[in-house]
Amino acid sequence: MTARSAAGKRIDDIFPQLCTNSQLPGQVTPAINPSLVISEEPAQTDLAFICLPHAVAAETGARLLERGTKVVDLSADFRLHDVREYEQWYKHTHPVPALLETAVYGLCELHRERIRTTSLVANPGCHATTSILALAPAVAAGIIEPGVIIDSKTGISGAGRSLTLATHYAEVNEDVSAYSVLGHRHLPEITQELEEAAQAGSHPVSGGLRLTFIPHLVPMTRGILATCYADLQPGQRSLTTNDIRAIYEEYYANEPFVHVIDQPPHTKWSYGSNHCFIHPFVDTRTQRLIIISCLDNLVKGAAGQAVQNANLLYGFSESAGLSAIGINP
Amino acid sequence: MTARSAAGKRIDDIFPQLCTNSQLPGQVTPAINPSLVISEEPAQTDLAFICLPHAVAAETGARLLERGTKVVDLSADFRLHDVREYEQWYKHTHPVPALLETAVYGLCELHRERIRTTSLVANPGCHATTSILALAPAVAAGIIEPGVIIDSKTGISGAGRSLTLATHYAEVNEDVSAYSVLGHRHLPEITQELEEAAQAGSHPVSGGLRLTFIPHLVPMTRGILATCYADLQPGQRSLTTNDIRAIYEEYYANEPFVHVIDQPPHTKWSYGSNHCFIHPFVDTRTQRLIIISCLDNLVKGAAGQAVQNANLLYGFSESAGLSAIGINP
Amino acid sequence: MTARSAAGKRIDDIFPQLCTNSQLPGQVTPAINPSLVISEEPAQTDLAFICLPHAVAAETGARLLERGTKVVDLSADFRLHDVREYEQWYKHTHPVPALLETAVYGLCELHRERIRTTSLVANPGCHATTSILALAPAVAAGIIEPGVIIDSKTGISGAGRSLTLATHYAEVNEDVSAYSVLGHRHLPEITQELEEAAQAGSHPVSGGLRLTFIPHLVPMTRGILATCYADLQPGQRSLTTNDIRAIYEEYYANEPFVHVIDQPPHTKWSYGSNHCFIHPFVDTRTQRLIIISCLDNLVKGAAGQAVQNANLLYGFSESAGLSAIGINP
Amino acid sequence: MTARSAAGKRIDDIFPQLCTNSQLPGQVTPAINPSLVISEEPAQTDLAFICLPHAVAAETGARLLERGTKVVDLSADFRLHDVREYEQWYKHTHPVPALLETAVYGLCELHRERIRTTSLVANPGCHATTSILALAPAVAAGIIEPGVIIDSKTGISGAGRSLTLATHYAEVNEDVSAYSVLGHRHLPEITQELEEAAQAGSHPVSGGLRLTFIPHLVPMTRGILATCYADLQPGQRSLTTNDIRAIYEEYYANEPFVHVIDQPPHTKWSYGSNHCFIHPFVDTRTQRLIIISCLDNLVKGAAGQAVQNANLLYGFSESAGLSAIGINP
Repeated sequence: MTARSAAGKRIDDIFPQLCTNSQLPGQVTPAINPSLVISEEPAQTDLAFICLPHAVAAETGARLLERGTKVVDLSADFRLHDVREYEQWYKHTHPVPALLETAVYGLCELHRERIRTTSLVANPGCHATTSILALAPAVAAGIIEPGVIIDSKTGISGAGRSLTLATHYAEVNEDVSAYSVLGHRHLPEITQELEEAAQAGSHPVSGGLRLTFIPHLVPMTRGILATCYADLQPGQRSLTTNDIRAIYEEYYANEPFVHVIDQPPHTKWSYGSNHCFIHPFVDTRTQRLIIISCLDNLVKGAAGQAVQNANLLYGFSESAGLSAIGINP
Repeated sequence: MTARSAAGKRIDDIFPQLCTNSQLPGQVTPAINPSLVISEEPAQTDLAFICLPHAVAAETGARLLERGTKVVDLSADFRLHDVREYEQWYKHTHPVPALLETAVYGLCELHRERIRTTSLVANPGCHATTSILALAPAVAAGIIEPGVIIDSKTGISGAGRSLTLATHYAEVNEDVSAYSVLGHRHLPEITQELEEAAQAGSHPVSGGLRLTFIPHLVPMTRGILATCYADLQPGQRSLTTNDIRAIYEEYYANEPFVHVIDQPPHTKWSYGSNHCFIHPFVDTRTQRLIIISCLDNLVKGAAGQAVQNANLLYGFSESAGLSAIGINP
Repeated sequence: MTARSAAGKRIDDIFPQLCTNSQLPGQVTPAINPSLVISEEPAQTDLAFICLPHAVAAETGARLLERGTKVVDLSADFRLHDVREYEQWYKHTHPVPALLETAVYGLCELHRERIRTTSLVANPGCHATTSILALAPAVAAGIIEPGVIIDSKTGISGAGRSLTLATHYAEVNEDVSAYSVLGHRHLPEITQELEEAAQAGSHPVSGGLRLTFIPHLVPMTRGILATCYADLQPGQRSLTTNDIRAIYEEYYANEPFVHVIDQPPHTKWSYGSNHCFIHPFVDTRTQRLIIISCLDNLVKGAAGQAVQNANLLYGFSESAGLSAIGINP
Repeated sequence: MTARSAAGKRIDDIFPQLCTNSQLPGQVTPAINPSLVISEEPAQTDLAFICLPHAVAAETGARLLERGTKVVDLSADFRLHDVREYEQWYKHTHPVPALLETAVYGLCELHRERIRTTSLVANPGCHATTSILALAPAVAAGIIEPGVIIDSKTGISGAGRSLTLATHYAEVNEDVSAYSVLGHRHLPEITQELEEAAQAGSHPVSGGLRLTFIPHLVPMTRGILATCYADLQPGQRSLTTNDIRAIYEEYYANEPFVHVIDQPPHTKWSYGSNHCFIHPFVDTRTQRLIIISCLDNLVKGAAGQAVQNANLLYGFSESAGLSAIGINP
């Protein structure tokens, strides 16, 4: 285990709940030895999960790949294929642009086979995972117009552990607000992946998607819920909710973690689990398709998906270590 | 004070925080005598606020109007002009359809002069107030297409004090979900009022609005935030956020409670107050107009607006009794 | 699976998060088949967990025991040894008083060996588990005076899923209050078990404990934290916090789920896990012993402890099915 | 208005909810002009409220007093009479110890007459206000033993607006924990004031109080609830809850903001108001007196009490500007 600010500390200094005394007989053995001291430099390992700021992540990833370590990178550094797009949104020069070619966007449901054979996985953003899973079946089936609106609601943990007024309890409790309204950084990866999914489904979007993405902060710790709106294409306006659900169920027919359901989902259903719940339906008054999807931003939206990717990288069962269901209530 | 289930009880049995002993010198005098006993039948009063279920409200209102009481009705019974629309959405026969002609929709900012001279005000729904205030200037100015999407987020108090799983703390805490996705009852009043506002602004919507309204429950007690999306009309795509803001500022130029602002608003800013904050801006990538508005669902969305209406009915200062600003934090 | 109000429903009607489609290859298999229909009458099983109201639980338990089923009862019906005490606190005649002799109080840390050989376990209350684990080492060591004060703080889920104003989100959010101040029903079981622990430690409390227990409701879903206060006995006033910690560590030396720590614990550390964290220390200004303990009221305080008891009843590893650590954050 | 970090900013940059446009006719006039620019140096004013860190507050206060400004200081610098006590708890040399003689502890209910004639008021701490109001009548009446335990629960806003892990939403939401368990800085002022109240009631505490004070953080923004425990004196054990309530009602007979009630209070009753609710009762099983009191830590526990003090300093009605009742729900 490696960290920058926490280097030299024991893990249980930071997370005392790991203090179970694992040596004793009959005890619950934690996955991590709580007395492990965090190092500054990564040891030689088979696999590395990188959770560093933009640019630093890319440099570290490049270094680890060189010495033969497979990498699941949780930053945004390897998510976009187009380096100009990256530099426009992230405002700095990409340190290793060549790696953008080899990196695979780690949304297992869309790129499972390519993930199995790469050594560099770009773990998707939390909003991006929620939104892409919601819309991919519809764009792949070519049933919606290119004008798409995604209204996303996320808990506070998405902002990380750093200290800002936007994560101060007294500021965000009993409050809802939109943020990054002029352009959130998950927007380009959502667009890239949905346009690719449309292509993969033989329904390329001519002219590209016209996509609006507005995230909102809601007073809870975990969970993202995306409500996605798009007009049905003129030739598809006779589609019923049942028709749409059949399209979605087929698209996700063999997925362990994606569940197409017939009622609006609750973020709480996914709390602490790697599951994603998706409810597509037709707003018959307006002939719009609406899709509501949700997941735990820290699991399927981050660490759980990273483990799922690692399982693919190593040929393990894809759901190894991910058997938890949502904690309730 | 009148109530059905609480008849015979003292007010401070139900709201002990009103137990300040008001007789003593130098004391804070509460507006209500806490030892008042709640009656079952309304006394003869000049004015009545009605907070009864649908249909019961209409019957009670009719009875009170007959004996000369002015009425601010917080139910939906007098909000819709078209009795067929009402009966379709509320699933019962309207008991006094003739009164729909005389009732005025009590959104003060849109119908101030008509409210002053009526005796029956239909206090708007909380979602409806938030959404209509957000969109009225745009439809009145004729700058947006008829396709409108409203994604609304509300705290739990909007569901009232009745006991349901959807208001049970352990069920809704740490949870976000959409509800009434097949058609929320505030939808027809939003449509009616926006189409009227368009007409009033000399930009009638030919063919009517194509409006989707999806409400969501977020884990907080008070507050509504509506995020509204609409394409700019082809001839209006050069409008900038500054242009739009000027339109909104003019529309609400003399309003004490509606504030057009240049950043995304926070529901907390309105907590406990009658203020509404509106942030309109152009999503330049997609040439959409986005408007975010928020207010306290129990004040400007209910009781505060009722007081504002009563002030108009009686020629009092419109802001009498409504001087509180949002409690912070 | 058996229930009264839910009989005839499928499990995933009630808990849709269990809707994972378990038949497909590569999928996460849930522990429960979500399409199972809930019955009204219990099938013949080896083991039953009973979560019924007082008195009904005792009758059901007696019936199941007769047909050879082992029982872990989560009600209070078999917790108290003295039937008069039971009838005084629970205000009805005990239906099967003879079973009070055979029932074992299911606090594994105190009665492990007796649990292994019984067929009827009385699963402890959530407040009781937290408080007894906090105080047992001190009374067993005979270091504190009989005057004990327990100030407990619990999340809302402790009140169950039934609908009351005390579980209504808008009433309890942003609120702290004490409840059952004239005598909470967990008080007699705490007293019974602590006096037994004192006896077991050869330091019987002459005259009995003089115990005050005041529970408080705090706005969160899960978690209990008990702050316990007692004067050190005159002969023990030179004991330091280190001395006390040594006593506690020895008492819980081989426990998989009880952790003696050197800082104030957080309920969040136990969220979703069966772990209990205990911090004993001396208030040197006043020569009082203070012990703060916490756990998840729904796991170690209820269902997790029931599983731990079942593991003992059947000779399984005591921590089987209980390996989760606290979900963080 | 003066500030250090915010100097040069407009008020509505920091608190946009103050952005009501106050110049227009018929508008709600905010107490503060939102376009006011915050200065670094205080202007010459009649009165100053000081909210600065320890030591800086004392220096600033001394400077303002010299130029004739009356001061209500919200820091702890002038609360303790004994400079050694101050220096021991606050770990620095007091910059103007002579002022400790002239400062009056600003708990209006206890020192009303002395506040009227001073020019320097030390506004009490939030925990201290809650606890002293709870216990003063009992110590003044000489009915309890000197061993007192105060278990206090406070919302997160008590920690101020500074950024720490202890105020990070994801860390404190769904969490309860104790803090400052080895000695919170409000302890000496509680002790000082209660011993004085005992003296004032002609029941001096020989040997001093033996007081334990343990504060806890609960996941809410506002509110403090203190649960106070003390044994009744041997000669007072026949006192009933009614007797005690009579003592409390007499002690607070003319108080506009302190309410003695006959049920456990809820912090929510005081939300946003200057009111304090106190419920004293006898735990008859143990002959202990228990007093539960609560208030809004930011109002009666800070800013509201500061206004109440200012009203006394200037001979205004004591409740001027403080007429709000608790926001509900």
